[in-house]
Amino acid sequence: MLEELKQEIYEANMLLPKLGIVIFTWGNVSGIDREKELFVIKPSGVPYEKLRPEDMVVVDMEGNVIEGELNPSSDTPTHRILYREFPDIGAVVHTHSFWAVSFAQAGIGVEAMGTTHADTFYGRVPVTEALTKEEIENDYEENTGKAIVCTFRKQKIDPLAVPAVLVRQHGPFAWGKTASQAVETAKILDVVAEMNYHTLQLAHDSRPVPQYLLNKHYSRKHGANAYYGQNNRKSLQ
Amino acid sequence: MLEELKQEIYEANMLLPKLGIVIFTWGNVSGIDREKELFVIKPSGVPYEKLRPEDMVVVDMEGNVIEGELNPSSDTPTHRILYREFPDIGAVVHTHSFWAVSFAQAGIGVEAMGTTHADTFYGRVPVTEALTKEEIENDYEENTGKAIVCTFRKQKIDPLAVPAVLVRQHGPFAWGKTASQAVETAKILDVVAEMNYHTLQLAHDSRPVPQYLLNKHYSRKHGANAYYGQNNRKSLQ
Amino acid sequence: MLEELKQEIYEANMLLPKLGIVIFTWGNVSGIDREKELFVIKPSGVPYEKLRPEDMVVVDMEGNVIEGELNPSSDTPTHRILYREFPDIGAVVHTHSFWAVSFAQAGIGVEAMGTTHADTFYGRVPVTEALTKEEIENDYEENTGKAIVCTFRKQKIDPLAVPAVLVRQHGPFAWGKTASQAVETAKILDVVAEMNYHTLQLAHDSRPVPQYLLNKHYSRKHGANAYYGQNNRKSLQ
Amino acid sequence: MLEELKQEIYEANMLLPKLGIVIFTWGNVSGIDREKELFVIKPSGVPYEKLRPEDMVVVDMEGNVIEGELNPSSDTPTHRILYREFPDIGAVVHTHSFWAVSFAQAGIGVEAMGTTHADTFYGRVPVTEALTKEEIENDYEENTGKAIVCTFRKQKIDPLAVPAVLVRQHGPFAWGKTASQAVETAKILDVVAEMNYHTLQLAHDSRPVPQYLLNKHYSRKHGANAYYGQNNRKSLQ
Repeated sequence: MLEELKQEIYEANMLLPKLGIVIFTWGNVSGIDREKELFVIKPSGVPYEKLRPEDMVVVDMEGNVIEGELNPSSDTPTHRILYREFPDIGAVVHTHSFWAVSFAQAGIGVEAMGTTHADTFYGRVPVTEALTKEEIENDYEENTGKAIVCTFRKQKIDPLAVPAVLVRQHGPFAWGKTASQAVETAKILDVVAEMNYHTLQLAHDSRPVPQYLLNKHYSRKHGANAYYGQNNRKSLQ
Repeated sequence: MLEELKQEIYEANMLLPKLGIVIFTWGNVSGIDREKELFVIKPSGVPYEKLRPEDMVVVDMEGNVIEGELNPSSDTPTHRILYREFPDIGAVVHTHSFWAVSFAQAGIGVEAMGTTHADTFYGRVPVTEALTKEEIENDYEENTGKAIVCTFRKQKIDPLAVPAVLVRQHGPFAWGKTASQAVETAKILDVVAEMNYHTLQLAHDSRPVPQYLLNKHYSRKHGANAYYGQNNRKSLQ
Repeated sequence: MLEELKQEIYEANMLLPKLGIVIFTWGNVSGIDREKELFVIKPSGVPYEKLRPEDMVVVDMEGNVIEGELNPSSDTPTHRILYREFPDIGAVVHTHSFWAVSFAQAGIGVEAMGTTHADTFYGRVPVTEALTKEEIENDYEENTGKAIVCTFRKQKIDPLAVPAVLVRQHGPFAWGKTASQAVETAKILDVVAEMNYHTLQLAHDSRPVPQYLLNKHYSRKHGANAYYGQNNRKSLQ
Repeated sequence: MLEELKQEIYEANMLLPKLGIVIFTWGNVSGIDREKELFVIKPSGVPYEKLRPEDMVVVDMEGNVIEGELNPSSDTPTHRILYREFPDIGAVVHTHSFWAVSFAQAGIGVEAMGTTHADTFYGRVPVTEALTKEEIENDYEENTGKAIVCTFRKQKIDPLAVPAVLVRQHGPFAWGKTASQAVETAKILDVVAEMNYHTLQLAHDSRPVPQYLLNKHYSRKHGANAYYGQNNRKSLQ
């Protein structure tokens, strides 16, 4: 079942080591079929060089394994909560990419310091609050998902406009309409974190770009008036 | 038309990911035919692995697409202004290379801290002022070009002697007589920014090299008395 | 003799340059046959591209070479002490991986700043005290091993729960049940050191994660209730 | 003439980009035939991918080109002075490797912070004083060599015990008995500079290792009692 989605999610998982945002088995990608209410996710702890499309595990929205010989990623409950609470997303990525983890460990969100950031994220990529002892000891991965959702609700952030988060003391999650887009976003998050770090070291008082620059760059690539790429033909001045 | 120039610009674009100064579609190279007053530029948002010489877009000095099925780079108006205002340059490169962007985001020019810098740039690579709300909301890319030109005029910098700039909150542009030279300059800018960063972290009060060292190194490689490379044969002491 | 172990140790040694934690001849892996009380170790100063399984040297627990044409690694006495004093380990790795060495040189242990650390190390990776003049001038490598053991005893650390150490002014040693596991741990140590460094630069007052997060992540991967990977099948919520 | 030496120097030059310490044409290696009093050096500005053994240029101790179609490296007078004043060296390497240049630009020597350093350098790698206006404007490259020699004489450093230097505002030179050894030393200098940098950022008051540790590590690899590698067979305790 879901052979096409399994192939897509397999390929998206294989991009993670290729893009340099995952070593060993430290990452996973899932994608959802919204009509069937089933999602497909990497199996837990399987090395990328041994991974095959047919190893992908099918999980339902209650977290039951519907198909697959292998255990799904231990982060499956986090993915499930994100699909449930962010109904417009089609794929979720988790990595331990080094720059994003460094910000997550420092408890600092990745501010929009320049246009590279603004092209993908419409504002700061937030960091969640640390989970409590209770939240960690029981249903840890599910509570990780809830902490993400809570962060976006409290700070009134649209998860499609800012398609990534840093989980405090842990690392990044990213998402998107498609798996390849979510993986690209996970890579971009790591890159803007790297540049943000060096910006802050060069000038500790560096400030985010103004709202009108955010608006401009985000709308160049997103929405009805987007003019980056090949989807619209626009006369150039 | 301009088949030779298209091939040259195609090859220069392909150098960007190879040199590690562009990921995804985050860069573009153009080159101008000064006699025909036409320039050739990468199409917008096309991945490098799919790019072909015939995809290059031909644009005139008013910004009209003269030939090409695809939209030209969204940065085309910036390139156009640079060609118009810097009449001696033959090619322009834009990247989001990580170290140069970090300086652009911090609003700090790349000072000439050593001979590596002086071999290519005759002094500090300047950073523009931030564009205003008005400049961003209308004709943004054209105003980016104007901000670059204004920086060079105000600070009385010869764009051939310092063939690169950092656009505040954004990233680097570089240029040169030829496209391959402009791409090499874009890479060197990133490298000297990286070394400049570490120099400043090691010694916060590091100062640029004196003018006579700048003169020496720049003239070793440029001008009538250049003696680096194979263009002149000079007896060695 | 010990052909299978020699092959395993050869392969583990070859992983070091592949994982980017050894350049030139700056590392070595050994593995022990606990029944025969013999261990197998890389020969000293042999470049990895010339290394062959049959070059591995067999050493007994008194440090005598039992088999092998080549000198064993000059760090052999350190390995020997670790095997003698940590009776549950099966393999030892030494590298000069850059981030771990930087912490060793600064005399700072690698604190558990996040879950990436906690998945492998159940708490801080400690740094030994500097060896004295006397300890360096006589039986230096053996005293290095003793300094490691002393650090674990004094700080009451279980060497299987925290399977690595930084030797002050020198660099990391790691160990494990198997050679491939010990090498993986040596790589992870370098990665968590790198992220720890950037975390501290971002926020100088960054604190280790709480004990309950350490407990959770360590027990996800280790012990009877582990649910990461494919060894246990667990229903997901 | 000197075909064997040309081949050796060609191969040593080709190692520079392979080891990641040279990009573009930013480096050169030479080697000397002490009996003939001739040295062989890379031609100036020739890209590594086009370099051939027969392109190497033969120069005498007065700096005259004895054989070769191409101009020798513009740094030839620096090499010449080093051969003249350091009579025991057989090869010289110059690079703009990024970490070593950063220290040269900051005017800070690379202190012996750990055993990685001590295995190759018997103490701090010094930085020269900045050249004066007069020294730069006349016989610049020759004066660069003299500044290096002056630094070693003044600070009473044995150039074989510390086979590298940082030229202030410029970059590193390294040397050795053979060209491959000198290139290896140039790489090690960059690596220990990188680790030194991070050590200093972690703990600003980090101090060099004590003399007895320097003695121990240097003598493990050098001199009559060396026991690293395969040149001596020593019983292990």
